[in-house]
Amino acid sequence: MSRTSLKEAAAAIRKYNRFLISVHTSPEGDALGAELAFFYLLQKLGKQATIINEDPLPAEYNFLPGKDNIKPYRPAWKDIDFDCAVILDCTDLGRIGEVSKLNNRLPVINIDHHISNKKFGTVNWVDPKASSASEMIFRLYKAMRLPFDADTALLLYVGIMTDTGSFRYSNTTVFTHRAAGELLRFGFNVPLVYKNIYENIPFTDMQLLIKVLLHIHRTSGGKIAWVELPAKLLRHKKLSFDLTDHILSFIREIKDTQAVALFKENLGVRNEIRVNLRSAGLVDVNKIAQAFGGGGHKTASGCTVHGRLADVRAKVIAQIRRNLK
Amino acid sequence: MSRTSLKEAAAAIRKYNRFLISVHTSPEGDALGAELAFFYLLQKLGKQATIINEDPLPAEYNFLPGKDNIKPYRPAWKDIDFDCAVILDCTDLGRIGEVSKLNNRLPVINIDHHISNKKFGTVNWVDPKASSASEMIFRLYKAMRLPFDADTALLLYVGIMTDTGSFRYSNTTVFTHRAAGELLRFGFNVPLVYKNIYENIPFTDMQLLIKVLLHIHRTSGGKIAWVELPAKLLRHKKLSFDLTDHILSFIREIKDTQAVALFKENLGVRNEIRVNLRSAGLVDVNKIAQAFGGGGHKTASGCTVHGRLADVRAKVIAQIRRNLK
Repeated sequence: MSRTSLKEAAAAIRKYNRFLISVHTSPEGDALGAELAFFYLLQKLGKQATIINEDPLPAEYNFLPGKDNIKPYRPAWKDIDFDCAVILDCTDLGRIGEVSKLNNRLPVINIDHHISNKKFGTVNWVDPKASSASEMIFRLYKAMRLPFDADTALLLYVGIMTDTGSFRYSNTTVFTHRAAGELLRFGFNVPLVYKNIYENIPFTDMQLLIKVLLHIHRTSGGKIAWVELPAKLLRHKKLSFDLTDHILSFIREIKDTQAVALFKENLGVRNEIRVNLRSAGLVDVNKIAQAFGGGGHKTASGCTVHGRLADVRAKVIAQIRRNLK
Repeated sequence: MSRTSLKEAAAAIRKYNRFLISVHTSPEGDALGAELAFFYLLQKLGKQATIINEDPLPAEYNFLPGKDNIKPYRPAWKDIDFDCAVILDCTDLGRIGEVSKLNNRLPVINIDHHISNKKFGTVNWVDPKASSASEMIFRLYKAMRLPFDADTALLLYVGIMTDTGSFRYSNTTVFTHRAAGELLRFGFNVPLVYKNIYENIPFTDMQLLIKVLLHIHRTSGGKIAWVELPAKLLRHKKLSFDLTDHILSFIREIKDTQAVALFKENLGVRNEIRVNLRSAGLVDVNKIAQAFGGGGHKTASGCTVHGRLADVRAKVIAQIRRNLK
């Protein structure tokens, strides 16, 4: 089925000429790598393409080639500027935020690897077996017989590497390694890529991170571990880095941990808690996040829950407890 | 040259029949994966093989298939029990510790990927371009046309994955990914492998780790960062896990860090400091460790230095400072 949808997606891409490309808010390596590599794919086909994201590029992705092609959303953009929208790495159209105002009447090509994808497109190429949206764009280059170059190779590698946690999550397949090997032929500096994305934390942020880690809580015999990021902790520090992944990866290193949660009070909005969940593989945290209107993958998910920090935490922990193995 | 040495190593392996296999003290994933996979290679050839290591298997490698074939050194072993010794992942013969007492008169096949290898063997197959000793054993299987099976695939994967820091160090090549992909065909559980090795830290150890991280020191504008593990901190805690890599990886995530050092007072011996060094790629920490009689790789090395903690630290930091870029 996935092969059919790949062909349909390729056919649709050949048909249209003026493309809007977008990805979800808070874009990470995979969304950015996939959309920029897709932008270059359209250029190679002689098409017009514009990337519009609601959120700006996070600082750790400043090294990505072609990043200046990502434009912020402005109401001045009109549907009539485009004849097709390609939405990457999104489970539903709401994930692109304000940019969704643009594509009321546009045909939508939905390219995604999330199992929870809502098939919101005119054409839906959804492949939950792909490690990442970038791995799907890798396949698309192959299927359309388009050559990689140093820039697209780096972009696709960044997407695959970040979404597989450097080739260690369960989404890593034989094909993932084959793709990474083929991309690495272009000879980019692997440790430098890693350093740019992960080893670039300002010392003051790192000190806050360590302070947060001093207060790891555990329950259910250590199967559940969590930390909190109350607004008062964040208000006094200017954080230039998103520490979510670092905190969760660190806590997951504790023996017997099946599920990890981070509860973060949103600074702007009162009583709004961002919950990020990670699983060691047994617990399906996508299911848990969906119970609160969020989603993601089996081993990494998130949701935004309204309520006081302590109440939200109690509700989410209870839900995790019901899903322990 | 490396290809010739591979052929010579293969020829020597075909010639002998009763093999002693050993690796360095404090063996990690690569040494263990390589020696066990090599043990199975000899079995497939119908040879007799005995693995003798000075140090026991670290707890995090308890899941390795065939681990019971690793025997501790005992004086009862005699040279005459073997007609050849194969030493893996060692820069010099001293690295195998007490086991070196055994092979005075044995021909030695030296298989290693360290650039600082002393060519101590009768046959020396040294390939600094290989990511790991395990990647070399992977090549040996191929060259000798021997099939992998689920156990050897897992063992070689563990060696390659651990020595490349999960495919992110500079030793990761196109071939490394190709090998990992081929091994992954045997369908082992990648996140579980990772969890066994890295995400299995007892909570009490983790709390000590966080306490150590509260005292990260920096100098040279943050280019050098270090922590100390004084004996008094270790004496009151029973550590079941080697936290060296975790501590150094964590500190390396700080922006602008070029070199990271961990100074650990050895519990048994007064005034003996184990120094572990990591580099982000620019600084050659192999050179720095060699200045103190140690060695390793450009980006990861170690040495043991005698003196008081503060004195050793000052000397090593001064040496790093001279090597900053």
